[in-house]
Amino acid sequence: MAPKAVVLVSGGLDSATALAVAKSQGFACYALSFDYGQRHRCELEAARRTCEQGGVEDHAVIALDLRRFGGSALTADVDVPKDRPADEMETGIPITYVPARNTVFLSIALGWAEVLGAFDLFVGVNAVDYSGYPDCRPEFIQAFTELANVATKAGVEGTGQFRVHAPLIELTKAEIIQQGLKLGVDYSLTHSCYDPLPNGTPCGHCDSCQIRAQGFAAAGTVDPALRP
Amino acid sequence: MAPKAVVLVSGGLDSATALAVAKSQGFACYALSFDYGQRHRCELEAARRTCEQGGVEDHAVIALDLRRFGGSALTADVDVPKDRPADEMETGIPITYVPARNTVFLSIALGWAEVLGAFDLFVGVNAVDYSGYPDCRPEFIQAFTELANVATKAGVEGTGQFRVHAPLIELTKAEIIQQGLKLGVDYSLTHSCYDPLPNGTPCGHCDSCQIRAQGFAAAGTVDPALRP
Repeated sequence: MAPKAVVLVSGGLDSATALAVAKSQGFACYALSFDYGQRHRCELEAARRTCEQGGVEDHAVIALDLRRFGGSALTADVDVPKDRPADEMETGIPITYVPARNTVFLSIALGWAEVLGAFDLFVGVNAVDYSGYPDCRPEFIQAFTELANVATKAGVEGTGQFRVHAPLIELTKAEIIQQGLKLGVDYSLTHSCYDPLPNGTPCGHCDSCQIRAQGFAAAGTVDPALRP
Repeated sequence: MAPKAVVLVSGGLDSATALAVAKSQGFACYALSFDYGQRHRCELEAARRTCEQGGVEDHAVIALDLRRFGGSALTADVDVPKDRPADEMETGIPITYVPARNTVFLSIALGWAEVLGAFDLFVGVNAVDYSGYPDCRPEFIQAFTELANVATKAGVEGTGQFRVHAPLIELTKAEIIQQGLKLGVDYSLTHSCYDPLPNGTPCGHCDSCQIRAQGFAAAGTVDPALRP
């Protein structure tokens, strides 16, 4: 029987690639998405399509309204920055950072993993084009792994060691896209924009749209989500 | 201005005491409870009363349905064990353990703390009468603290250090009750039972009821919640 993995799938490009990597490594994948009050909630539809195409065992969408706390342009009534120059995007922590988001998401993934008997968590974080988010860094992944191994039954009983896989963490966006294409990811199904039009069309100007466009350009290919 | 703290308040005896400790240390307290699909959902009403009596700045109740994963007698259709002998309660991890629950709850508390500008989290976990839960141990608190300080803006920017306070972790239930009574906690407002009657009356037989009863007996006082 294939070992099980819980994979965080947001609906974006990175997590679709992380799912494909987990599949290619032989894991039976349990996908987890969050309806957390995000401005770009249409990414959940992209997550559903991505999971369907990727072939998962189960796809859980957990509702958790982080708007109660706000503190981010993604969960509060704050404008998403547009057309920021590259040097500005590369410095500081942007207003789209959602406090402790990856900590929360990985914690819930850990709970599901315990129930499933899975010891592998996959997350598509990326420290190169990571837009300055603290919870996309290797030291975060390391600290979460250590926590997972003391926070759980298996940690106490010594019946297994949790591993947090961040297979994209050292890749550029172009490298992520190239790897995903090799693994058969259909990027036309994914959604990256933080501030889409009501019909889901990407704004083309937020950090996420800009990083995606630059990634496809650098990978020497066309973003299939933009084909008419 | 008083420093802010986020305090996990379940509605039970321990977290009511942890809230009183945080208040006594001069913190402006932001209480956080979870509507997570728990069988003993009436504890949320106890949490509301406890926060009102305790004098908090704000009380957030976050909905997060952990029944999607199950894996615990508190969130799945599994019987809560009754009338277990003490030696049985003291060994192993009971079926009422909710996978990764404290990791999830503290992660969400961390997110709120970041938004509030708070660096102090309080949690009423207890390693003596802790019923064998992995996420009630000092090594868990230590690992979560380390995670908090790499997972967040403040950790990256060096603007502050998170502290996770577990003021009850080394106390017996009797000592917790004695400390709470000194601090003015009204335990008649709290609820501990895992499997109450539909009207909220404690069953008197689950681990939590037994540990509570033994605690009040050892403290030499009567449980005010049981007064007619």
